[in-house]
Amino acid sequence: MLFAMKGANENHYANHMPTALAAAADAMAAGEVPVGAVVVAADGRIVAVAENQMHRSKDPTAHAEMLALREACRVLDASRLEDCDLWVTLEPCAMCAGAIAHARIRRLYFAALDEKSGGVLHGAKVFQHPQCHHRPEIYDGIMADEASQLLKQFFAERRQK
Amino acid sequence: MLFAMKGANENHYANHMPTALAAAADAMAAGEVPVGAVVVAADGRIVAVAENQMHRSKDPTAHAEMLALREACRVLDASRLEDCDLWVTLEPCAMCAGAIAHARIRRLYFAALDEKSGGVLHGAKVFQHPQCHHRPEIYDGIMADEASQLLKQFFAERRQK
Repeated sequence: MLFAMKGANENHYANHMPTALAAAADAMAAGEVPVGAVVVAADGRIVAVAENQMHRSKDPTAHAEMLALREACRVLDASRLEDCDLWVTLEPCAMCAGAIAHARIRRLYFAALDEKSGGVLHGAKVFQHPQCHHRPEIYDGIMADEASQLLKQFFAERRQK
Repeated sequence: MLFAMKGANENHYANHMPTALAAAADAMAAGEVPVGAVVVAADGRIVAVAENQMHRSKDPTAHAEMLALREACRVLDASRLEDCDLWVTLEPCAMCAGAIAHARIRRLYFAALDEKSGGVLHGAKVFQHPQCHHRPEIYDGIMADEASQLLKQFFAERRQK
């Protein structure tokens, strides 16, 4: 999906998914479901990188996307991220999709689909209702194999324990 | 809706919406959209009260419900609020509904419907998909007139400015 857009905008040449995947791997090393997220400003600068923290923080809302969005707002001293893009290793859930809309993220790039818990292309399909007041451009499937592999490894190891 | 349940459970006799409405009034006094939320433990103890902070915190995720859920987890040192109830003055949006599911809230009580931005009975209807892994009991319309009046007053004043 991403590379079909090649040439449409210079920012599309920079792939920030490897950074998000590295954050996901850090989460896994810490016993968290491996999901990572990156917020990139319009000039291509990375303004926030975050990984799942639900277990460590005892915070059910501490998904990588939520933390990355909040950190980006803090760094930019802004309550909206209108020119920013979010890269995340897994399809966001309904909560995170809602937060992405509230933050006015310009483009959402994600890796693996989440048929079980996703809220963008599955389930609630948060962006597809008039009650959602902002819909980012959406690009899925970027480095999906790498992201899925991390998740499969995490759940396989957890089942063995 | 609430009082139709009268007798089903002792906790249903305690109405915590006045506390949520007081928090909403505090938000309005600070220039925020007036929404307040309260988390109540199974023993009836209030464990968290929060109000909208999006404007003051420059945080688009700082809805009253999100803040109340996170504060309740902190106070109870728990990542799930399985025996807790959430009282909120407005129908939660998709983001907050997702967070309510992640937190495993037992009962959701809310005041005013939100046809424009709600995600429980409107739009994404977050709890009504298999991708949502927990559905609280839902009671709507509790002190809805009081909650709506605050919101109407806020938006009327904002239009005049």
